[in-house]
Amino acid sequence: MKSTIQSVKGTRDYYPEAMAVRNFLYATARKVSESFGYQEWDAPFLEPLELYAAKSGEELVKEQAFVFPDRGGDLITLRPELTPSLARMIAQRQKQLVYPLRWWSWGPCWRYERPQKGRTREFFQWNVDLIGVDSPQADAEMVAVAASFLQQAGLQPDQVRILVNNRALLASELARMEVPEELSKSVFRLIDRRDKLSNENWEAYAFEIGLNAAQLQGLKNLLEDQELWRKSPSLVDCFELIDALDLKDYVRFAPHIVRGLDYYTGTVFEAWDNDGEFRAILGGGRYDNLVAAVGGDLLPAVGFAMGDLVISLVLKKFHALPSDIGASPASILVTAFDESTLHRSFELAASLRRAGFSTAVYPQITKLATQFKYGDRMGFRIILVMGPTELAQGQVTVKDLRFGEQQTIPQAELVEHLRRLLTGEN
Amino acid sequence: MKSTIQSVKGTRDYYPEAMAVRNFLYATARKVSESFGYQEWDAPFLEPLELYAAKSGEELVKEQAFVFPDRGGDLITLRPELTPSLARMIAQRQKQLVYPLRWWSWGPCWRYERPQKGRTREFFQWNVDLIGVDSPQADAEMVAVAASFLQQAGLQPDQVRILVNNRALLASELARMEVPEELSKSVFRLIDRRDKLSNENWEAYAFEIGLNAAQLQGLKNLLEDQELWRKSPSLVDCFELIDALDLKDYVRFAPHIVRGLDYYTGTVFEAWDNDGEFRAILGGGRYDNLVAAVGGDLLPAVGFAMGDLVISLVLKKFHALPSDIGASPASILVTAFDESTLHRSFELAASLRRAGFSTAVYPQITKLATQFKYGDRMGFRIILVMGPTELAQGQVTVKDLRFGEQQTIPQAELVEHLRRLLTGEN
Repeated sequence: MKSTIQSVKGTRDYYPEAMAVRNFLYATARKVSESFGYQEWDAPFLEPLELYAAKSGEELVKEQAFVFPDRGGDLITLRPELTPSLARMIAQRQKQLVYPLRWWSWGPCWRYERPQKGRTREFFQWNVDLIGVDSPQADAEMVAVAASFLQQAGLQPDQVRILVNNRALLASELARMEVPEELSKSVFRLIDRRDKLSNENWEAYAFEIGLNAAQLQGLKNLLEDQELWRKSPSLVDCFELIDALDLKDYVRFAPHIVRGLDYYTGTVFEAWDNDGEFRAILGGGRYDNLVAAVGGDLLPAVGFAMGDLVISLVLKKFHALPSDIGASPASILVTAFDESTLHRSFELAASLRRAGFSTAVYPQITKLATQFKYGDRMGFRIILVMGPTELAQGQVTVKDLRFGEQQTIPQAELVEHLRRLLTGEN
Repeated sequence: MKSTIQSVKGTRDYYPEAMAVRNFLYATARKVSESFGYQEWDAPFLEPLELYAAKSGEELVKEQAFVFPDRGGDLITLRPELTPSLARMIAQRQKQLVYPLRWWSWGPCWRYERPQKGRTREFFQWNVDLIGVDSPQADAEMVAVAASFLQQAGLQPDQVRILVNNRALLASELARMEVPEELSKSVFRLIDRRDKLSNENWEAYAFEIGLNAAQLQGLKNLLEDQELWRKSPSLVDCFELIDALDLKDYVRFAPHIVRGLDYYTGTVFEAWDNDGEFRAILGGGRYDNLVAAVGGDLLPAVGFAMGDLVISLVLKKFHALPSDIGASPASILVTAFDESTLHRSFELAASLRRAGFSTAVYPQITKLATQFKYGDRMGFRIILVMGPTELAQGQVTVKDLRFGEQQTIPQAELVEHLRRLLTGEN
């Protein structure tokens, strides 16, 4: 490796094999989103800093966002997440849009974090949001979209699971324990760190934010109570509807899920691998105040986001990625025989493309052995040779690389022959 | 509009209608790229500043690139174009990659320019490159990929055309006129400004860079000479192969095309609308020294890039954009009748999705009239109602919004009935 120019730390180079994985995720996200009737949208990748201030949570903006002055001096942010942009765009056209709004998006976000397994500074995120409705149906649908993705991507309920909770339920339980309302943000943050801190440090943190011993014990009991959801009519309805969608196996209640961001108001959920080997695969919930916070009228909303990194690791672990990833998208390679036949090779390729076959031509006259070796390494299915002998007889030689068979057939029969070979019919 | 947070100047908000146009371009780019056997790849969106220094042309780096220090102090650039990243990634794995390499990409780039019609600071670009071969076949294929895009997007040769030239041909003609070789970069820049300056200013610029009167006259004659291509064996072969691909009508020789970037070495081309109403739609050419310039071994390459903005304006002008852009991706809307039937509506939607129909459920119990109005505004084709009456009789009411017809049929016949309605068969 001679190159002296290094890529930026925390970014990724998408060679075709890596790109194929990213595209598998994007295509599956598209399929699932569209099957539920969601429309694709996108926000700018650059947003003004003030869009994030006081909305996304302090850590995200102050410590993790890439912020810089542009040539005019304005402070620009590389978007660290998509939801504030969604809220801004909806607030901008709040009166013209048709509700309920079902929107999904796929694109890059940036966070200045320490790069590690499953975490880069530049990453891709799938966002799905249902805007304008506050109902258990909407929450159930959102969880179901996430569960359908896991299912469509080839993952099983014994490998991954979506854990669902409700912040309003937690808030009412905290009130019952006489935790002052102004502490609830801190307590949510405390709950979110349950698995990230040692028990000792976690308890110390609890006292630090102002809980007393009885409240701490109450909170610990709460976080163990697997039947707590029965107290929330919203969760009861939500689980029943997920059952109606036949996705119950992918979903369960989990009282310790609260999500890190400040803007969630009701249902919250995260997907995890059951072994706990990776971080959360996706996460989301209800955020009914965000549109108003960026200048719009109050508008209820529920949504989730999934980064591309953790899900890729999970799919890899469970061998759920398709096997042909990284091969040439063309099945057919037309060889270049010599100067005299080149024109005809180009004509042949054009006619095959018109017949619907993706077809590459070897773009240089060189030894046939070199061209065959290239065809093999790139994963082509079929190699065609049309040299002077074949041309004189109106024929073409067809080599099937999968079975190693080679035959010379009339040119007029080629399209039909290729169709049989590529569809596996006889 | 209450929102007080403005988006960043020169960025775009992609509401679903705008996103559908972007996706039409991306999908057409994918279809054409893959039909020629190109593999999708991508580079990071952030690159180190030194990658662009002295390679992309001074204007692009010094005046137009978004450059900023990251939190660690390193100078980061939002990529203003993709080719230097391509060269970097190839130089990094030059020994492992299989040549000829056919790569395509679609993604954002950023340039700090004055936003105007057909120009934003954040835009999308389609890049196509064929690496490892220096041959007229490769050049012809590259022009053909561009021409196929215009054709597939629905544009005709009397609306748009690809203008092809060759820098080596120009260089040898300049040598014949005794223009010193060290002036050739300046002369290419002079030629590139032919249409951008008044004749007076252009001639003054010619003298300024050091041409004498005879050379200026020679250059003017050269730029009028429509038969000049016959002196270039490479162009002669290239045009013949484009003819073999049946794309000749989209392509013609144009002696004044040189491209603005410094790294081109041979064939160069640009697509323009024939009326000259817009700027160049796409542009590219052969750049045989760039991989070596970023630290690799010498490797020939040819490629082009197309921004999303000008082509969108051209497609709009010629009414070549599909008409269903912006409608719901689901054809079917299942209404929510009341609490007692909600569960069944969700089950019905899930079964339709399993049968391959994209299906939305109205996510809230509300008046049917509201739901029907929503279905109409969002462009659904079919609305299904399953209230207590239908349920009691094992039926479902199907309203076809296109023809305004409504019938109540047995649930068991629904899938077949929908298939007939949506495919237009009887």
